[in-house]
Amino acid sequence: MLDETTPASGAMEGGGAYNRHAKLQAGGAFFALPLFEAAAAQITLDGAHPVVIADYGSSQGKNSLAPIRAAIHTLRSRIGPGRAIIVYHTDLPVNDFRSLFGVVENDPETYSQNDPGVFPCAIGRSFYQAILPHEHVDLAWCSYAAQWISEMPRVPLDHIWHSCMTGAARDAIERQAAQDWEAFLTLRSRELRPGGRLVVAIPGGRDDDGSSGFERIMNLAYEVLADMVAEGAVTADERGRMALGVLARRRRDLLAPFQDGDTYCNLKVERCETCEHRDSAWSDYERDGNLEALVDKHAGFYRSTFVPTLAESLRLAHDEETRRKFSDRLEHGLRQRLTAAPEPMNSLVETIMFAKLGPG
Amino acid sequence: MLDETTPASGAMEGGGAYNRHAKLQAGGAFFALPLFEAAAAQITLDGAHPVVIADYGSSQGKNSLAPIRAAIHTLRSRIGPGRAIIVYHTDLPVNDFRSLFGVVENDPETYSQNDPGVFPCAIGRSFYQAILPHEHVDLAWCSYAAQWISEMPRVPLDHIWHSCMTGAARDAIERQAAQDWEAFLTLRSRELRPGGRLVVAIPGGRDDDGSSGFERIMNLAYEVLADMVAEGAVTADERGRMALGVLARRRRDLLAPFQDGDTYCNLKVERCETCEHRDSAWSDYERDGNLEALVDKHAGFYRSTFVPTLAESLRLAHDEETRRKFSDRLEHGLRQRLTAAPEPMNSLVETIMFAKLGPG
Repeated sequence: MLDETTPASGAMEGGGAYNRHAKLQAGGAFFALPLFEAAAAQITLDGAHPVVIADYGSSQGKNSLAPIRAAIHTLRSRIGPGRAIIVYHTDLPVNDFRSLFGVVENDPETYSQNDPGVFPCAIGRSFYQAILPHEHVDLAWCSYAAQWISEMPRVPLDHIWHSCMTGAARDAIERQAAQDWEAFLTLRSRELRPGGRLVVAIPGGRDDDGSSGFERIMNLAYEVLADMVAEGAVTADERGRMALGVLARRRRDLLAPFQDGDTYCNLKVERCETCEHRDSAWSDYERDGNLEALVDKHAGFYRSTFVPTLAESLRLAHDEETRRKFSDRLEHGLRQRLTAAPEPMNSLVETIMFAKLGPG
Repeated sequence: MLDETTPASGAMEGGGAYNRHAKLQAGGAFFALPLFEAAAAQITLDGAHPVVIADYGSSQGKNSLAPIRAAIHTLRSRIGPGRAIIVYHTDLPVNDFRSLFGVVENDPETYSQNDPGVFPCAIGRSFYQAILPHEHVDLAWCSYAAQWISEMPRVPLDHIWHSCMTGAARDAIERQAAQDWEAFLTLRSRELRPGGRLVVAIPGGRDDDGSSGFERIMNLAYEVLADMVAEGAVTADERGRMALGVLARRRRDLLAPFQDGDTYCNLKVERCETCEHRDSAWSDYERDGNLEALVDKHAGFYRSTFVPTLAESLRLAHDEETRRKFSDRLEHGLRQRLTAAPEPMNSLVETIMFAKLGPG
């Protein structure tokens, strides 16, 4: 029986670790870049107020630099150098905002260095709440973030990963995800100005079984967790609470709110594309045969993205040393398995561009 | 000889430590609260754009809750519940923003809980740069922050604390502080809308010798650092680089930019008051005789506010364990001295309200 709510999504691993290891997410976002540039070219830019860009779920910021830089480049060609641009990076309150401001202010790739009219800031609140005023945002970006659901359903879970679960657990997560997606669109639509655009990149699910391409690494991690229970490194209770509130979305799930008409909450789908996201770490490995580098990349991706959330279910989750030991042990076991039988981690990306229609 | 720039101001101690120990700063800010409420009542509120509050140098946010709450209360009585209010908390990029968002979102005293029209956010950039668009801010607050100078002058320093220094070191810091104060006012004036207000609370300096009331604890810390050099816990080089880029300001220094006329950069001084800030920890001690509690408060204030900046001069400043050991040792020595000879730490606070005039 579950007597506590399991957190659906903790923050990514701190100390800038996510910035260093989230190459897969950066690669996925790359597919949505042309949409974001098109959006920057198409948004309505009436008035003289600062142009507002919102980056929903930015984590530690590194993966936001390229898209925001591209959007600003397009915007500047339309509005000239004088008009201010405000960029809001949003994530959970526990996010590593120090790393975010570190890269946004000082990374060689940042968008803010050579443009004194650009003003970066951050918001520490879940995007399943209202986080900006009504009709305040001109251009919105959300990449590899909206796959996290708002909270974990209170049902017994038979795996840590949605598409490896069965029966009631799986259904409950899908219901929560459908509800969250509608909430996300409703909230973002309110925050967009008429004529504004929202571009989303999100891991895709295969049409037949909803699988995402991450099942193998999730099964390996699940095996390591079983070993850790056997050796007493975590308790069976702790392991039983561990789960990732993530749902790779099928195209039809993403378009479901629009099935009764062209629009939902004054949002209209302008583009929607499914892209095959080939594992670039695997391509590198095929070229150079460097197995250690491949395992570094896969294990680093897994640890920085998913392990902090699993660690939230530890009884002593507040203790940094406990979390570190847990993360080290899980990573170690994962590395052994990944080294013994390397495989590519190919996935799908769904990219969508929404336009906000006028109130009329 | 100094071959590196000594940092003038690091962030306050992380992990929410500043939030727990900065009671002295909260007490000082209290003197400026009536000015901030008056400012909220007087600012021009044309148009329908969100009302913008800027909190310059908010550190970890706890001390900002009461003033922002008071300002919002006054604003809501003028604008009703519908109009959005955006609150920008600003500090250095290395600030502990996780703690800031923690209190702003979840502290029982926060201003954001029962008002869905209030939107908190953060900016990670020094306020000696432009950090918000021109004419964007309606109401600005800066409490116990503008005493930190932008950078340490490159001269040999004969103490860690300005008013304990002599000769060229002291003069150089005063020149830097005068220049920084003008830059601060110029930047803030640009960011304020015409009819907006800026309220500043800042530790005051005595007219005769510029002393601030913190000399004794600074001398004790300086003695402990000498002991630490003697025992090899820090090198003489490291100790020689340690200094706090802080200047308690005399009223005449704060008003110096205005001496040639009523206004400076379209700012006009509407109120300027000097207040005696009696040490409340000492009053508690006089009442309850609890010496340990007194020493806790004084040492906690010192560690959370000043020690991180001193630790920046360690050769291994990037290593968390090195910083922790240094901080523990310095605090330990300070506690011994504070316990042996307790004294009150009375200081001055200068509070000022500026109005931004129209461009005409």
